[in-house]
Amino acid sequence: MTTFDLLLVGYGHVAQRFVALLTEQRSRLAHDHGVRTRVVGIATRRRGQVYDGRGLSARALESYVVSAPSTGSWPPRQGVSRTVTPIVDFIRRATRLSAAAARQRRLIVIETTTLDIERGEPATSHVRAALAGGAHVVTANKGPAAFAYRALAEAADRANRRFLFEGAVMDGVPVFNLVRETLPAVAIIGLRGVVNSTTNYILTAMEQGQPFGEALAEMQAMGVAEADPSLDVEGWDAAAKTAALANVLLGADITPEMVERRGITPETGRAAIDARTMGRRVKLVARAGREGDRITARVAPEALADDDLLAMLEGQQNAIILQTDLLEEIAVVQRSGSLTQTAYALLSDLMTIARDVTRAPATRRAPTSAPRRRTPSRRDRR
Amino acid sequence: MTTFDLLLVGYGHVAQRFVALLTEQRSRLAHDHGVRTRVVGIATRRRGQVYDGRGLSARALESYVVSAPSTGSWPPRQGVSRTVTPIVDFIRRATRLSAAAARQRRLIVIETTTLDIERGEPATSHVRAALAGGAHVVTANKGPAAFAYRALAEAADRANRRFLFEGAVMDGVPVFNLVRETLPAVAIIGLRGVVNSTTNYILTAMEQGQPFGEALAEMQAMGVAEADPSLDVEGWDAAAKTAALANVLLGADITPEMVERRGITPETGRAAIDARTMGRRVKLVARAGREGDRITARVAPEALADDDLLAMLEGQQNAIILQTDLLEEIAVVQRSGSLTQTAYALLSDLMTIARDVTRAPATRRAPTSAPRRRTPSRRDRR
Repeated sequence: MTTFDLLLVGYGHVAQRFVALLTEQRSRLAHDHGVRTRVVGIATRRRGQVYDGRGLSARALESYVVSAPSTGSWPPRQGVSRTVTPIVDFIRRATRLSAAAARQRRLIVIETTTLDIERGEPATSHVRAALAGGAHVVTANKGPAAFAYRALAEAADRANRRFLFEGAVMDGVPVFNLVRETLPAVAIIGLRGVVNSTTNYILTAMEQGQPFGEALAEMQAMGVAEADPSLDVEGWDAAAKTAALANVLLGADITPEMVERRGITPETGRAAIDARTMGRRVKLVARAGREGDRITARVAPEALADDDLLAMLEGQQNAIILQTDLLEEIAVVQRSGSLTQTAYALLSDLMTIARDVTRAPATRRAPTSAPRRRTPSRRDRR
Repeated sequence: MTTFDLLLVGYGHVAQRFVALLTEQRSRLAHDHGVRTRVVGIATRRRGQVYDGRGLSARALESYVVSAPSTGSWPPRQGVSRTVTPIVDFIRRATRLSAAAARQRRLIVIETTTLDIERGEPATSHVRAALAGGAHVVTANKGPAAFAYRALAEAADRANRRFLFEGAVMDGVPVFNLVRETLPAVAIIGLRGVVNSTTNYILTAMEQGQPFGEALAEMQAMGVAEADPSLDVEGWDAAAKTAALANVLLGADITPEMVERRGITPETGRAAIDARTMGRRVKLVARAGREGDRITARVAPEALADDDLLAMLEGQQNAIILQTDLLEEIAVVQRSGSLTQTAYALLSDLMTIARDVTRAPATRRAPTSAPRRRTPSRRDRR
């Protein structure tokens, strides 16, 4: 039985659902996987910081959400203390206090802060600090993989720790894990997909005559749209996911601004209605591929033939079609999304780390977080 | 660098393509994964047996296919010898001669013989003999998982070896590996899919007015239909795959005869044309799920709404939709099939074994071949 110590950086809906999921799945994790977890620290921007190396109680976790932070000493062991330290400093201090767990590769930073999609921050700095402190990192943020994948993957390699982010695209539906774990001898040569739920919902609704603004308002009311909906409709969210996919699966080193991008407008709705009469469906399609040595990446509305798998994605459904050298095309489809699915993405990454740690002794070199064939690192194997 | 010794049991198109694939991918396997392979033996029913513990040369591999077997001594080191021993005896003897590799968990039997779909043999006996001889087993046959999954998984567990069969369903597109490697904390509660290419091709063709027999003849000419096409059209192939999926993913212990089964006929074609006029599409749908404590499994033509993901599978496309507790529905779609894809399935299983062996020292207990949460075995982890 291995106990993993968790530092929660960000503690909003996703992280709270994740903690509840750990409790719900406690016996499955323990009995089937030999894994126990405890939360040893939480840090958010507004509510302050709390740390207890022996594990925070369920009551401490609950009261964190409601209690007002107070100024206190460091480590902020009892209750919640508001410190002037930025979260990056919390990560540095907390990983130092948890140095024993870090050495045994049992320390994991769970990163779920709100993302500034134009810079990929503060998530990227959090990942960097966590790896520097000897922790593995699991994040639901697309920012780090979209803006700094190569550098972070190399940092993880050097630290012999994992940097995982399954939740960055299609929630818990395996994409990154799928390629890493189940397609070891296959090269991904390109991909296309529908990766933003809000725009797909709006497009489907507009085809049926609903106005753009009304459909968007529905997505906002349901909490699916980004806080700033222009990130969805202008294609920024899809571009960030496309950059992450291209970086990880195609070995690119791009950022979201380098993705050619066109979003959707009320105009697109009219085009979608016209396309429908000709047996076609308009979707916001994300693409990445190779052109010679260059990686190209693009997000734009496309009128697809109606027997195209992407054309039949209704409402909030997402899908990615991987073009491979040996297996031709493989598609993964997410038929529905929810908070639980995003939280599950964190859990699945945690289990990937657990499998590594429990399989291989701490002194041996762990598998790289980067897909093996893309990085120059060569592992020394027997 | 670890060298895996391969015993090829069956050496038809799939196995030959697999050997070619190993050569094509040699440098990727060596550099990115630290894996080398060599074929140390081949056995087929008609062409006799050959074994060389130092590895068969490329010329020996080639000449095996064309040369006539001669009576010779055992081990049949030079050339091919026809012995009266059945293949099971070859496996026993060859694993004994390769005992050192077996002890180091470097010996793999690659099983690709022709299947008797009514009994799951001789593949099941081959798997049993291979595990008893300390070899891992990789098979493209659905028989062993469809007829004897639980017993074989337990035998593999006891032997601390792997029993893998990704190619049994949807060729190399990950299904079993997907669930085992990327959905560790998810329970599969049911599934449905289109898993037989021949019947889906015939149904699609009949919708467009092509006669049943003509469409079937095309599939036979392309080598996609089973040698005995009644195995496809009467639903036996789909039933065997459904049994395998139910056994592995739902913890059932059933055989293909226990799958409720209806195939397709020229009648089904007329029903498909009628259904199409009502916006529905007829597909041969495989289903498995729980009803209380019981696992139910069924293969039958169903008229699906045309926005059903399974309804839009044209020609030879296949798909499986997994119903899960935490992630709701996840679909995996195979957009095209080929000999290379089936051969790749064998390679992906080989890589799974390689990852285990190179990660964990030989003395430690390897992960079970059965999904962890279904078997009573509890691994002793730190």
